[in-house]
Formats: sequence, C-alpha cells, structure tokens
Amino acid sequence: MPHQTALGPTRPTWPLGLDRIAYGGDYNPEQWPEEVWHEDVALMREAGVTLVSVGIFSWALLEPRPGEHDFGWLDRLLDLLHENGIRVDLGTPTASPPAWFFAAHPDARVVTRDGTVLGFGSRGMAAPTHPAYRTAAVGIADALARRYGSHPAVALWHVHNEYGAPVAEDYSPAAATAFRAWLQDRYGTLDALNAAWGTAFWGQRYGEWAHVDVPSVAPSVVNPAQRLDFARFSDQALRDCYVAERDAIRAHSDVPVTTNFMTTNCLPVDLWAWADEVDVVANDHYLDAADERAHVGLALAADLTRSLARGKPWILMEHSTSAVNWQPRNVAKRPGELARNAYSHLGRGADAILFFQWRASRSGAEKFHSAMLPHAGTSSRVWREVTALGDELARLDEVRGSTVRADVAIVWDWQSFWAQDLEWRPTVDLDHRERVLAYYDRLWRDGLTVDLVHPSADLSGYRLVVAPASYLLTAADGENLTRYVADGGTLVVSCFSGIVDEHDAVHPGGYSAPLRTALGLTVEEFQPLRAGRSVRVGWSHAGTTAELVGDVWADDVALEGADVVAAYTDGPVAGRPAITRHAHGRGTGWYVSTRLDVDQLAVVLGAAYADAGLTPTGLPEDVEVVRRHGTDADYVVAINHADAPVAVPADGTDLLTGTAVSGTVKVPAGGVVVVREARPA
Amino acid sequence: MPHQTALGPTRPTWPLGLDRIAYGGDYNPEQWPEEVWHEDVALMREAGVTLVSVGIFSWALLEPRPGEHDFGWLDRLLDLLHENGIRVDLGTPTASPPAWFFAAHPDARVVTRDGTVLGFGSRGMAAPTHPAYRTAAVGIADALARRYGSHPAVALWHVHNEYGAPVAEDYSPAAATAFRAWLQDRYGTLDALNAAWGTAFWGQRYGEWAHVDVPSVAPSVVNPAQRLDFARFSDQALRDCYVAERDAIRAHSDVPVTTNFMTTNCLPVDLWAWADEVDVVANDHYLDAADERAHVGLALAADLTRSLARGKPWILMEHSTSAVNWQPRNVAKRPGELARNAYSHLGRGADAILFFQWRASRSGAEKFHSAMLPHAGTSSRVWREVTALGDELARLDEVRGSTVRADVAIVWDWQSFWAQDLEWRPTVDLDHRERVLAYYDRLWRDGLTVDLVHPSADLSGYRLVVAPASYLLTAADGENLTRYVADGGTLVVSCFSGIVDEHDAVHPGGYSAPLRTALGLTVEEFQPLRAGRSVRVGWSHAGTTAELVGDVWADDVALEGADVVAAYTDGPVAGRPAITRHAHGRGTGWYVSTRLDVDQLAVVLGAAYADAGLTPTGLPEDVEVVRRHGTDADYVVAINHADAPVAVPADGTDLLTGTAVSGTVKVPAGGVVVVREARPA
Amino acid sequence: MPHQTALGPTRPTWPLGLDRIAYGGDYNPEQWPEEVWHEDVALMREAGVTLVSVGIFSWALLEPRPGEHDFGWLDRLLDLLHENGIRVDLGTPTASPPAWFFAAHPDARVVTRDGTVLGFGSRGMAAPTHPAYRTAAVGIADALARRYGSHPAVALWHVHNEYGAPVAEDYSPAAATAFRAWLQDRYGTLDALNAAWGTAFWGQRYGEWAHVDVPSVAPSVVNPAQRLDFARFSDQALRDCYVAERDAIRAHSDVPVTTNFMTTNCLPVDLWAWADEVDVVANDHYLDAADERAHVGLALAADLTRSLARGKPWILMEHSTSAVNWQPRNVAKRPGELARNAYSHLGRGADAILFFQWRASRSGAEKFHSAMLPHAGTSSRVWREVTALGDELARLDEVRGSTVRADVAIVWDWQSFWAQDLEWRPTVDLDHRERVLAYYDRLWRDGLTVDLVHPSADLSGYRLVVAPASYLLTAADGENLTRYVADGGTLVVSCFSGIVDEHDAVHPGGYSAPLRTALGLTVEEFQPLRAGRSVRVGWSHAGTTAELVGDVWADDVALEGADVVAAYTDGPVAGRPAITRHAHGRGTGWYVSTRLDVDQLAVVLGAAYADAGLTPTGLPEDVEVVRRHGTDADYVVAINHADAPVAVPADGTDLLTGTAVSGTVKVPAGGVVVVREARPA
Repeated sequence: MPHQTALGPTRPTWPLGLDRIAYGGDYNPEQWPEEVWHEDVALMREAGVTLVSVGIFSWALLEPRPGEHDFGWLDRLLDLLHENGIRVDLGTPTASPPAWFFAAHPDARVVTRDGTVLGFGSRGMAAPTHPAYRTAAVGIADALARRYGSHPAVALWHVHNEYGAPVAEDYSPAAATAFRAWLQDRYGTLDALNAAWGTAFWGQRYGEWAHVDVPSVAPSVVNPAQRLDFARFSDQALRDCYVAERDAIRAHSDVPVTTNFMTTNCLPVDLWAWADEVDVVANDHYLDAADERAHVGLALAADLTRSLARGKPWILMEHSTSAVNWQPRNVAKRPGELARNAYSHLGRGADAILFFQWRASRSGAEKFHSAMLPHAGTSSRVWREVTALGDELARLDEVRGSTVRADVAIVWDWQSFWAQDLEWRPTVDLDHRERVLAYYDRLWRDGLTVDLVHPSADLSGYRLVVAPASYLLTAADGENLTRYVADGGTLVVSCFSGIVDEHDAVHPGGYSAPLRTALGLTVEEFQPLRAGRSVRVGWSHAGTTAELVGDVWADDVALEGADVVAAYTDGPVAGRPAITRHAHGRGTGWYVSTRLDVDQLAVVLGAAYADAGLTPTGLPEDVEVVRRHGTDADYVVAINHADAPVAVPADGTDLLTGTAVSGTVKVPAGGVVVVREARPA
Repeated sequence: MPHQTALGPTRPTWPLGLDRIAYGGDYNPEQWPEEVWHEDVALMREAGVTLVSVGIFSWALLEPRPGEHDFGWLDRLLDLLHENGIRVDLGTPTASPPAWFFAAHPDARVVTRDGTVLGFGSRGMAAPTHPAYRTAAVGIADALARRYGSHPAVALWHVHNEYGAPVAEDYSPAAATAFRAWLQDRYGTLDALNAAWGTAFWGQRYGEWAHVDVPSVAPSVVNPAQRLDFARFSDQALRDCYVAERDAIRAHSDVPVTTNFMTTNCLPVDLWAWADEVDVVANDHYLDAADERAHVGLALAADLTRSLARGKPWILMEHSTSAVNWQPRNVAKRPGELARNAYSHLGRGADAILFFQWRASRSGAEKFHSAMLPHAGTSSRVWREVTALGDELARLDEVRGSTVRADVAIVWDWQSFWAQDLEWRPTVDLDHRERVLAYYDRLWRDGLTVDLVHPSADLSGYRLVVAPASYLLTAADGENLTRYVADGGTLVVSCFSGIVDEHDAVHPGGYSAPLRTALGLTVEEFQPLRAGRSVRVGWSHAGTTAELVGDVWADDVALEGADVVAAYTDGPVAGRPAITRHAHGRGTGWYVSTRLDVDQLAVVLGAAYADAGLTPTGLPEDVEVVRRHGTDADYVVAINHADAPVAVPADGTDLLTGTAVSGTVKVPAGGVVVVREARPA
Repeated sequence: MPHQTALGPTRPTWPLGLDRIAYGGDYNPEQWPEEVWHEDVALMREAGVTLVSVGIFSWALLEPRPGEHDFGWLDRLLDLLHENGIRVDLGTPTASPPAWFFAAHPDARVVTRDGTVLGFGSRGMAAPTHPAYRTAAVGIADALARRYGSHPAVALWHVHNEYGAPVAEDYSPAAATAFRAWLQDRYGTLDALNAAWGTAFWGQRYGEWAHVDVPSVAPSVVNPAQRLDFARFSDQALRDCYVAERDAIRAHSDVPVTTNFMTTNCLPVDLWAWADEVDVVANDHYLDAADERAHVGLALAADLTRSLARGKPWILMEHSTSAVNWQPRNVAKRPGELARNAYSHLGRGADAILFFQWRASRSGAEKFHSAMLPHAGTSSRVWREVTALGDELARLDEVRGSTVRADVAIVWDWQSFWAQDLEWRPTVDLDHRERVLAYYDRLWRDGLTVDLVHPSADLSGYRLVVAPASYLLTAADGENLTRYVADGGTLVVSCFSGIVDEHDAVHPGGYSAPLRTALGLTVEEFQPLRAGRSVRVGWSHAGTTAELVGDVWADDVALEGADVVAAYTDGPVAGRPAITRHAHGRGTGWYVSTRLDVDQLAVVLGAAYADAGLTPTGLPEDVEVVRRHGTDADYVVAINHADAPVAVPADGTDLLTGTAVSGTVKVPAGGVVVVREARPA
C-alpha cells in the first residue's frame, strides 16, 4: 500500500481500493434520467474509468427540505457503480446550498466589498461564517457519512468544491462579527491591533473592538494591513468550514478526506495551511486558453500541487478534455493535447487523472464545457482520445507511488501575493504571477524540475532557490533565505522583494533589508518606469557580455558588498547597478533589479546555474522531460509539445509500446513516451 | 382608404385624416412660452409639417397632483394645431411618471441586477409590474382618451415612449412577485420549471415556488434558462402595460393606437409579439454615428419595421435631422444626408417621415440633439434641408399605400439574441448584430431587397433565406427551415446556429442538430479562435476558386452528406470542411462555419444566388435602389450615397422634377430620384 | 510686515513668526515612538526646516472618546518644536473622524451616486451636511483653539485637509435634506426651480419641494441643471464646514487660518469662492507621473494659486520630494527635479516650500510616498537634495513678499468645468483640462507669465486673454469679455465656448451667442469628428501661410463680420471658416474652431501676440524664467529643464552663489539660478 502513510494516527492517504492510475471525472447523473445511467456506466467501462466524483451539487436533491433526506437515488447510483467496479469520490454538496437555505437565512447571502448582496441561482455560495450555514453544512456531511461511510464503492470523500471560488471574501454582518472575534484572538489587545495596522496613519485608531469592521469600500484606499488580515481571516473562515465537515465525516468513516484545490487558478486560499488538513492533495487545473504555451502554467500548477503534497503522489481531480467554457474564448484542445496535458500531470507526480466532467451538460452555465463524453457523443475525436488515454494509463500501473525530486525551488507565498495585490503599490505593471511564471518558464525550458516552497521552508535540499516575487517577507523568513546562502546555496532574488513584514509595514532599514546580508545591498529608491518604457542593461560576467533590455521596474541600489554584474546604460538610474552577485558564506546571492523576459533570463539564470552546479538538459525548448522515482526503477515521462520529433535520452522499456529503449527514445511531434529505466546501482 | 385594413373588427390602421406622406416630428411646446407656439405653427406650415407628436412627457403637467387634471394648455394647443391643419399624434405620458408618483410609491422605482435603486430626475421609468404604476398609467390614458378621443385634431394615439429604453429589466420586489406568477402560469409545476431550467446543474433545484427569484447578481453566472425566461417576462411586463393603456384608450376612441418601436436600437422587446398589438407599426431610428456606412443599418431597421408591419406601410416616428446627442461623438449629418435617410425609409415602405424633434430644447439632457428648427434658427442649413424635404414629399402623394416585396429573407429572432448575449458562450467575439449586419450589408450592396422573418414564419415566398445568427432555434423552427429547403428553397446558415432549444439547452444530437437534414452535417466541436487570429479557407465551387480568410470562429464539422465547397487550409481544423453545400429535396442548404467579412461573403452569397435564381443589380455598391408597388404603378426610389453620379435603370416619370425618364435616370452624387414606372402588363 | 495686509479687520495674512522662506512639511509624529521625535527635530534643524504641519489626522488621539480630550502628547510635541525654533502649522483633524464617530452616527457615512455607503478604514470622510459631523468638527476645532490658540509655536491654523478629496459629493439622506433647503434658498419658488432646471423636458416638473432629491443614478441621464446645482451645493456644504471651523478658531486665536487647496488636482471645489474665506492661500501640488513635462502643469497650478491669492505670496503646503504613491506608476523624481519644482513654485510667488511629508510612514496606504526623510534614511540622494534645498532657501530671505505680474490671463471657471463634465456633450474627446493645458503650455514655452481669471474678473490689466474652455458663460460674463475687447484687449476663444448659461441652458441666439459681438460670428452647428480623425486647416494671415491639422472638433461657423484667417480644406465642413479674427472696438477677437496641438497653437497665438503687443522671450522651450517684483529689486528665477546649459538675460547678483551677473547668467542643464536685479528707475 504505497500511499498509506499516515498523517493522523489511522488515516489512509489515498483513495481506497484503487490499484492503478485512477481515471475518470465528475459525474452528475442527477442531470439525466436514470436510464441514461446504465449507458453511462457501460461507456465508462469502455473508456477505462475507475473513479468518479459524485454528489458535489446534490444538496437540494439529498435534502429537499431542511432536515429531510432523500438518499434513494444515491443508493441506487452507488450500487450501480460498485457493481461495475467503478469507485466513488463522494462529494459533500456544501458549495451550493439549496434555495430553501437562503429563503430561511437571507442574511447568510454573501455581501461584496461594495455592499451588493449576492443572490441565488448560480453556484449558491453562502456566507462561510454564518452559524446557520455551518450547522447546515455539517449536518449534510454528517448524514452522508453516516449513510455511506462504509459503502464499498466509496474510495474518497470530496468535501465542498473549490474553496475560494467563485467568491472568497464576504462582507456580510456575520463576517464582521467573526472578523472581530478573529482579530481579538490574533491580537489580544486593541493596542496591538492599532500598532500592527499602523492606525495612526490617516487617523484610524480604534478605541473599542466593536468599532472594528470589515474593510468595505471607503472614500479612499483602505488600510492595507486591515485588508491583509481580512484576507487571512477569509481564508481561515473557509478552512474552518472544511475542517468542520471533515471532522463530521471522520466520525463515521475511515475513507480518506480531501477537497479539490485550484493551486494557481484561485489565489485567495493559503494552501500551505490547507495541505495540512487533507488526507490526500487534489487539484483542479484549467488551461489559460489565451496562452498558446499554457502547458507551462500547467506544469507549474502540477509542481505546486506536488509541493503541497510534500512530494507524495496526488490527484488531478479536474481538468478538461478540450474547451473550458468560462473563458472569453473557449479554445478547444488540439489533437493529442489532451494526452500531453494528462502526462505532464502524471510525470509531475499525479497518480489520478480525472476530468470535469463525464458527460456534457445540456443545460446550465457550463453546457459548453468539454467533457469525456461530449454533446457529439462517441463518434467524436474527444471520445476517441479519452478512451485511448484510458487504455494507455492501464499500462502504467507500476508508475503509481513513484515520486519526483527537484534541485530547484521557487519561493511561493500566497500571503505575499495578497499583500502585493493591494492598491497603491509602486507600479501597476509589476505582477507577481507574471514574474513567477517567467522565472518558472526559464527553468522549464532548461529542463530543470522545480518545487515551490514557502520562504520558511527547509531549503537545504536545493541547489538553487529563486524568489521572483517575495514582496512580503518576514524578518525570520529573510533569515532563512540568508542562512540558505550562507550554507552554500545559490539564491536569485527579483525586484520588489523583502519590502514589508507580515503587517505590510516597510521593514526598518529600508527596502529589501531582510535580504541585505544575503545580497550585499539594499534598495535606496524604487524607480518604476513609465508605461511602455524600457531600460538597457549591460551585462558582463565570467567572460561574457550581453546587452539586455528590462522594463517596468528599476531600482536605485545601495551596494553593501555585492559585485555589479550588470549596470543600467540608460533610463532613470543610468550607470547604477542593475544585476548583482554577492558571495555570502559558502553561497551566492543574486539580485535582479529590473524585469527581464524569459529569453533574457537565460543569461542571468545561466550564470546562477553555474554557481549552483546545475546543467540544463540541452533539449529543444518545447520538449518536457520529467522523471519519477520508483522503488527500483525510474520512469522518464517525455512530452513533445513541438511540431518535430525529438530524441530524448533514455534506456529501458517504453511502457506504452513495450519496446526496448537504448540510449535515446524518439518522441514523435505532439507525442508522449514513458520509459522505465532501471535504477542505477 | 388604402390603409384601412382592419386588424380588429373596426380599428383603422393608419392615422386619421392624412392624405399625403405625413411629415413632422415630436413637438414639446410645454418647454416654451405659449407665444412661441404661434411662431412654431407658422414655421410648421412653412416646412410642410402635417403631423406632430405631442404630450409624450407631459404627465406632471396634465396631472399635477394625483387624480387632479389640468388639460387647459393641451386644449389650447390641439385647437391651435387643428386650426392650422396640423394633425396630432397624441401621446400618453406614461414613460415618465411625475415626481409625486415616486414619492408616493418609492417601491415602484426600478432596481438593477446588482440592487441599485434608480432615482428620479431623468426619464422616470417605473417598475412596470408595480400595481400602483399600472393603475396610474391606465388612469392618465383613460383621462386623455375621454377628453380627446374624438378631438378632430387627433389622428393617432402614441402610447408611452420607446418601451424597453432606457431600461427594460427591473429586479424590484414587485418584479419578483410578478415573475413567480408568470412562471407558475408558464410551467404549471415546479417539476416542469426545474426540468426547463436544468436546475440539477450547480444544485439549483427549487422545492417551493416562493424560493424562485429574479436573476440578480450572484456569486457566479446565473442559470441561463432563468435569465432567458426573465427576459421573456420583462418583455411581457412591458407589453402588458401597453395593452392596458391601449384598451383604456379604445374604450373611448376610434383613433388608431400605436407605440414607437426601436427595431434595431433596443433589443429587449420581442417586436414580433408587439406588432400584433398595434394598429399601425411605428419606428424610431437613430444612426450609429461612429459608422460611416450607417445608412446600411438604417435600411435594415426600415426593412425590419416593414416586416413587422406585415408588408403594409408604416410610420417613421422619429429620426434625426442631424446630430444625435447621446452617442460618444455626435456627428452631424452631411449636406443631403437628411434627405437620403428619409428617402431610404420611404423607399422601404414608410408613409410618414417624422423627426425628433420640432424645436431644439434649450435645457435638459438632449439639448444637443438636432431638431427641425435648430438652436441656430431658420438661417441654418438644417432648416433649409427640412423645408426642402417637406416640399418634395408633397409631390409624392401617390406613393402612399404602395408596398415593397422581397425575394430574400434574413432570420431575425429577438429571443435567440437574448440567449446568445448571456455569459459564457464559446467566444466573446461572435456578435449576432455584427453577423446579421454583415450578411444584410452583402445583400444591400448586391441590390437585393430583404425581409426579416421569424424562423417559424411561412418562408415559401422567398427564393433565399439567410440565417446568420440562429443560436436558439427550436426543433419546430428547425423543421420549418428544413421544409423550406425540401420544398426548393435556398438556405444559408452561419456558424453557431441551431445550438439550443427554447430553454437554452443544447439540442439532443449535438450542435446544429435541428438543421442536420437541411445542411447534411452536424458540428462536432466549436473551434473559436484566439483574439486577433484568422484562418485561411480554400474555396472551390462551380469552376471558381478563391482563398478566403475567416476569423473569430471555426467548427469541426461532421459531414452527413454535404459537399465540401471550401476547406480550412490552416488553423485548428486545417483540412476540415469550412463551407458546405447540401442538396436536400428540391432545395439547397449552405453552411458557413467561420466569420467572413462582407467582401468575402460575396463569394459565398454569389453561389447561393445562383442556386436561388437571383441576380444582383450590378450597380455600384453605394447606390441604393428600392421599389414600391402601387395599385397600377411601381415607384423606383434611388439613393446615391456615393460621390459620383450614377445612371439607374428606370422608365417613366421623375416625380420630384416631373420630367420623363427613359431607360436610365441619372442620380447625382449624394442625390435622390423617385420614378413612377407604369406597371408592366 | 509685508504679508500683514488685512482681509478682515485684524487678521494677519501670513504665518506668524516666520522671517524667511518657510521650509518643511507634514509631520506625523503619532506614527512613531516619542524617542524618534528627538531624532526628527535634530534632523529638521540639519535640513533647515522652519515650519511643520501637525495634527492633521490626530482626531482619534486627541479625542479618544466623544468629548474626552487627550492633549498631553501634543503639548509635549509643540513644546519640543518650539524649543528648537520650528514653527507649527496646526491642523484640525476633521478630515478623518474617529471610528467612534461613525459607530455613533452610521447615517453620517458618505453615500455615492449609486447608493453605496462608504465605510471606515481609509480617510474617514463624513457626510459634510450631517449635523452630528458639524457639531463634532466644530467641537474639536474649538477645543484645539482654546488650548493652542496662543501657543508660541503655532504660526498658522490648517483646517481639515484637502476639502473635496477623496470624495466631494455625498448622496446620503442628510445631503438630500440639505440640498432641498439650499434650493429653496436659491430659487424661492418651485416655479423658479422648474424653469431653471427646464423640468418640462422628460416630464420632470416638481409640484412639491419634498419631491426634489439628490441626483442619484436614474434610468437614464439625470437633468444636467440639477446635477450642476448639486455640484454647487456640494461645494458650498464643504465650504460651510470650513467656515464653521474657522470661526470657532477665530474666537480663541489671532493666528491666521487656512486650508490646503489642490488647485488643479481636485476640481469639485470652486476656489474663487474659497479664496475669500482663508487668511492666506495654500496649495498642495503633485506631479502627474505619466507626464514627462509635468513641470508645465506644476507651473499652471502655481499660477492658479497665485491668482487665487490675488497676487500676494502664498504657501506651497504640500508637494513631493520624489515618488507619489497613489498614481499607477510612482515615478521617482530625477536628480535636481526636487529643486526645480520647488523653485518653479517660488518663482511663481510661493514664500513657503513644504512637502508631504517629513518622515516616510512605515504603514498605511501611503508608505510608498516619498518623504524628506525616506525609508533609506539620511544616506540617500533624496535626503541630500532636501538638505541642500533648505540651505539654499536660507539665502533667499529677501525674496519674501515680492510679487509676480502677468500680461496674459487664461479664463478658468470651475463651474464651467463641472457643467462640461456632465454626460451627453457633443463629444467625449473634448476635455477642458487638456485645452487649458495646451494653451497654457504654448504660453509657458513662449516665456509669458499667466494669471488665471474668472470670466467676471476685471481684465483691464491684461494684454491678452485666452478662453480655452468657457462652455458655461453667462450673458454678463460674455459682456465682460466683449467689453474687454472693445476697450482694446486681445481675446482668443477656443471652440465650445459661450454655449450655455448658469443653468446649463443653451443661450438664446444659438451657440456662442454671448461672444457674437466680440468674435463677429456665431456657431451654426457643432461638427465633432469621429474617433481618430483629423481635419486640415489652411492658414493665411499677415503674409504667412501654414497648413495646420486639427482634430476632435470642428464648427460650422456663421460669420457676422469676422475675417477668415484659416479655412478647413477637408473634413465635414471643408471650405468653411476654421479660425477667425474680428476687429471690435479697439481690440481683437480670435476664434479657433478646432483642436490644435501645442505646436500648431504657436501659429495662432503668435498672431494674437502681435495684436496684443507681446513678445515671447525667445529662449529654448524648456527654460522657465519668471520674475518676482520686490520693493526695490526684481528677482529673476531661471529654471533649466533641459539637458544643455542656457544663457538667460539678467543683470545683478546671483543670490545662491553671491556672484555678480552681467548681461546673461548661465543656467546649467537641470539647474536653477536666482538673480537679484535692481529695479530700473
């Protein structure tokens, strides 16, 4: 039982009863007459489906009136699936309370920052702090756990759905009450709160707890520390809902419990904290249709999911077979893209490949979302690709449980992102997502596998750590990064990092003060550029010179020992340092004070690789190769996103064809190869 | 009495007492001292004015306090107009209730989707379902009809003003109550409603009628079937208001009753239903100032108005002499444009040419709207053009009552447009207005006169039917189109048609299933393009080849018998069918799976014309020629929008000059000619 | 005592006890522990600081509970400053009421046009008409004046902060009540109000005062006269707040009272009226970071401030040492820009140069705003420039009290701007700010010093008056301008001027009627251009010809005696007059009917200069030279914004270096020179 390592004393950490790469998707049979269920199950078997998620939006069916349950249809459904050998990921339906709930509790509706009360009729998110919602949600979770906690079909519990989406913050009266309590718990005294929020600024000092409120829209920009705390509170409120349901389930069931994250698509939840609360990590991922290289963002999401799973295998709970309906332009996947996307997840540690959803909905807001069984039915390209993938995954049983190791880490901290996204930062053009993705993309093209880490994490296992967007960095976390360098690590820090502490207050000592020792500098003044402007940067290091072009940002750097590797040759700080390198202890700290695109980052990261002892693969840029490590073999997963075939180094057995591989394996244009390599002695 | 065909047992169908092409405009004398009225009437006579609309915004004057009427000023005005031989289109002022109404009924104010309550001080639209509004509106209509129902000046009743503008939807509590009642009437049972709306999706099932609400803003996208029904309900609520006022008038007056449509400028009202309720069809039309070819959109609006009038003559109730004040840039009309616009309406069936408004307002939101008598007074170009047109129209009495016939029809269905405009369609770039106008423009340039038709209409009289945007198409309407083809018609269908039924549910059988027999295909998958991308299409048909370029949309078509006339040569479905032609029964069904501009549509429609036996006029593209059919003569109306004179085929008499025409008539640059042609034996 | 001219019987008109150019900034010691205050004061002395503004956001500290005051910390602070010879501009903290105020008076929160209630947590603006706010504000002002009215440190009272920012309008119930009272006072009868507002349009007639409301969002555009009156009312409500506080202070203190204007950054307050209420005029100015030539806008703001001060010296209350944090991109000032900006203010009449703020805040919404003492501390470029400027200003004592004279005036009327900014004007592209700045910039480049004047002002002292944006111009003000021309003045009027009266009603007689005599024309019809279009204009005057290119706007002009100096050569009014010149009485009236950029305005204004007898300086365009007139000497302030040195004519003594100047003085690139010139006999 490779996945059964215990987080709690007795909790399993993998869906029960699955002995292969899980395959399937969301199944919403309540949208169809029961006679269709039998067709569904037959087609699932044809497609190789082993696991389906059910019940996620079924509250109004399961509890048609408050406290009155109707489980008959679900009994029949679970039995049918069980008879057909298909296991069930059973949802609690609490992401969408029934109409009767909102009719009985109109004050449990979510209120926006500007006071708009959100109505019923879409995904019926309720105010997460409202006591009636907590009671009702735990109630239906309890009822489901009592009835199905030991049902042989049930392999996994799926609490709620995508916490944080579509709305993560609530400004209702219930939220205000809960926020005050949360703050009292956090700060103890009003003096502490006033100090943390810097309420002396703009005369915001509080004299009574009752006067503290949610940060609704106000005549001008609201206190950023208040907003940051409200973001933390809102995250906690959602997590409390999850924990309450999870615990209700655990009282009646030994089946593992999870919820589906959206690691890179939904930033308002701090998944470092959530990961501690789930028995197994699961993720939903949807491509950004506007981005022709969205497979890089997919890889980032997969790596982040694996990092949340502490390196253990994880579940791809949802992705799409083709078009995603809620984007401005629902671009369909190209032939083979379905498989490439699935294998990229698998290569990065997923042991379950699931889709939203099994059968396309005829009605509702997502009827134009793709599905395993599209509106066009089984005579469609999508169906053929779905069944082919199911067939292939059945040949990869042995990959299950193998793990992925990374030499490089990128710093990722949701709380820093929340702080950076508040108003009145130095420029609207500097975006943490863009910066993280740019650095990640450079590493992806260079074939280096990456973990994402919190800045407080143990970094000792990494040769290179990159901090592309660490605006909020506590003094302690700054010390952690500094220690990493001192102990021999290579650290690359991008601009606007180490600026504020946990209360969004500028660090004493000036900008980037927590990193001054590691980097050998501080930042005297930000020099953001006007819209559309760029700056030239002359690079000279280790015998190579280059002219780079940055945009958006520059700094006026005050050197404290760092070497200037590149200097600005024009712009507002012409002649001043642009990129620096600092020897500290046994390691090296790099600072990049402007925004360089992915091509130009090759110069900087190339030098950092040399410091870190890393070597890029040298493969063409659009070839993705990742490696999973099994008990006695490695599995090389090679995905060719390009239009020409490529030869990838590998020795062993091509698991999809069963043929032997020696030296290299040819991966066709748009194709995928999985090679078992014997573990070197 | 050519216009006196009866809709009801005794209703006249044309303004009483007018024996020429009516000419005039909105007249708001309450904005001026009474001494100005005498100047107005004298100038009206100078300009040839025969009909003015009065009282449209006079509620607060006519009923200064609830139930207390002051008709003195209106008595004097109607008598003055009558004495001067100017007939009156008498408005009910219910588009703008007085301040006292809203003070007494604050809950009758309109509420927006996000809960904003709309105040007084602009056009005072009230909640159309509020009982107090209904009572008050019928009350003032009744009072007016009692007093003026037999006044000799009154030629027409003008109920309300532009139903649907400026707001068509209301989310007030009164609306919620009425919406529930409307739904109960429509569906009978909650089960039927749940099925129609597909409430199983996202857990929206209703267990009690009282829980069903208006589709206010919600955490995510609201159920599209609910929103579509709310659009239908909102349209019905406005129409109910109209009918109630109309019936109150009919109780006291034999004068015909109408209201002014905005056929193409205000889409929230389903004018196919409204047209059945008016004694005579009237339309307001305002050019899109940003569009230098706005005269094509004008022609479309005129053709749609005629189609609503079932081919009978109609009233151009409002258009502008020059600038329209509520657009971002109020572009003035060029010299001659006033006349060209008027004649385009006349040529397409209008027997009344009216403007908003007679005299420019000094105050208020529309003071920069042009008028017949502008701020600059009678020493202005606009006044000269206004009087010249009045003079010309007096020479065209015989054109009255003649009709227009079309060989081509374009499918136009407001309900389909409502459905397509909801969120989360496959691409934001595909716009039904743009597609309809592009196909219409192609036909306009080719000199073919077009009717607009509902998809359920009898199509047997048309050689060619074009469906540029039939997203919502019921199975029955699909059968109607299919039958049309089987019976020998030529049908051209553009992409994203035949997708959903009346509940916005995808048709069983997949996309375009209702048209599969007529077109010989279904659509397996939509392939919308990324922003700014295009696809190349290689055309080869009937001995001609061409390379076309589409954008926005492509389809992955599954052929079921159709011939591939053009295939994609690049893009996401390179090699697959792009444009197809299918022989079905005695007719032909064309499918165009991408977006082609008006120039490229020439290739496709040229081939369809050949199938339909239609021949373009061959005139230059900016020459507009339409023909009205009288009892024993035809009237050729030729309008030259270009900068060079053109010779237009015609034989007979130039009615404006009285000269004989033989073979061709020369239409000067920017000019207009009307030729009476004897009817061929 | 040059500044002690009395406005009231005994009021001083300059901060007490300052005998040099004042230097300093906002000081917010409540954000820091008291031990930091001692470091602050020491550094202030090092920097030459003589005046600091304190207490502006201290209400919650000074009155921690309603009616309960805590002055201890402020006592200590004022004593400390006094001991160190630093004088105090003491704020009343009423721009930001404490949390307890809003908790006690939730209905005193500001409501937006769409009904959003603005919460606490930013700058806590309250409803200015709410009685509880008035009481509380006067209460704290009274308490401060009683305690510190005679404190030797206090040199000036600083009431509130930037009235009108961040919100100027309030739609709360308190505002509605006050608005009705204001209207009753203004109009006396409802008939007068109905006439002024033109309520006959769209049926808005009021029959009871109680029905008149604030102009909240409505179904369509709200009555513009109502909105214009609401803008006037809102301005008056703020001014009433100021006056109430001022009078409370005057009861206990002889120290002069002011408030800080934002002349060009905050348009909702009519500073012509405000200027009469302050003892000394003070202004805050922040550069538009997106504008690389923002120093021109700075000069305009300074000239406007001086004009408000009736030519007397004034206080630059706030500007920035470098980045301004609330703009999209917080561009830092370049080296030397701090000094250039300060000297431009000084040259245009400022006798006090203050910054926001002394020490950069660690917390809150403005932590990234620059300061005299930045986060980087004293080892920074900003600190070096701050201390250098303080050192220089100490050498300019004699400049104090000298004045500036202008030969040119630009018409500036806030109320006209309010009217022009309402909806449904002829084009969204014509912006009064842009037009005023374009004409101002032309004059700036030509070295001509400019006053800003209300159109009712005595213009007899100016050779040239320019009206770039006088949309609203009363008949009386039109007569004033006409008289100015008749008496020998040169007037240049730009398009869309003289259109409406004080009620936003079009003038009888047509567009521009109030100026017809002065200009020799009226405007028959506006001819705004489509987006992105331009028109060519052929200029021929006084022997010179030029081809100009206008955009955005054209007119169809009806000549009444004016000479056509330039005609349109294409566009909608090709062949018609574009620019005209009219001899009237002893003067000349120019009309420019299109939008010309600053380069092309050189042609038009060059001709007007000739008429007015003005001569540009002939210096390079980026060299700014202004002259202050002292009792027996002039002071030439020369600022070189360019990258090359320039020689500026001057004779006398360079006050910063003490060296003699003969003929010309060399101003280095980016540098500043101040020369004392003996007054010619």
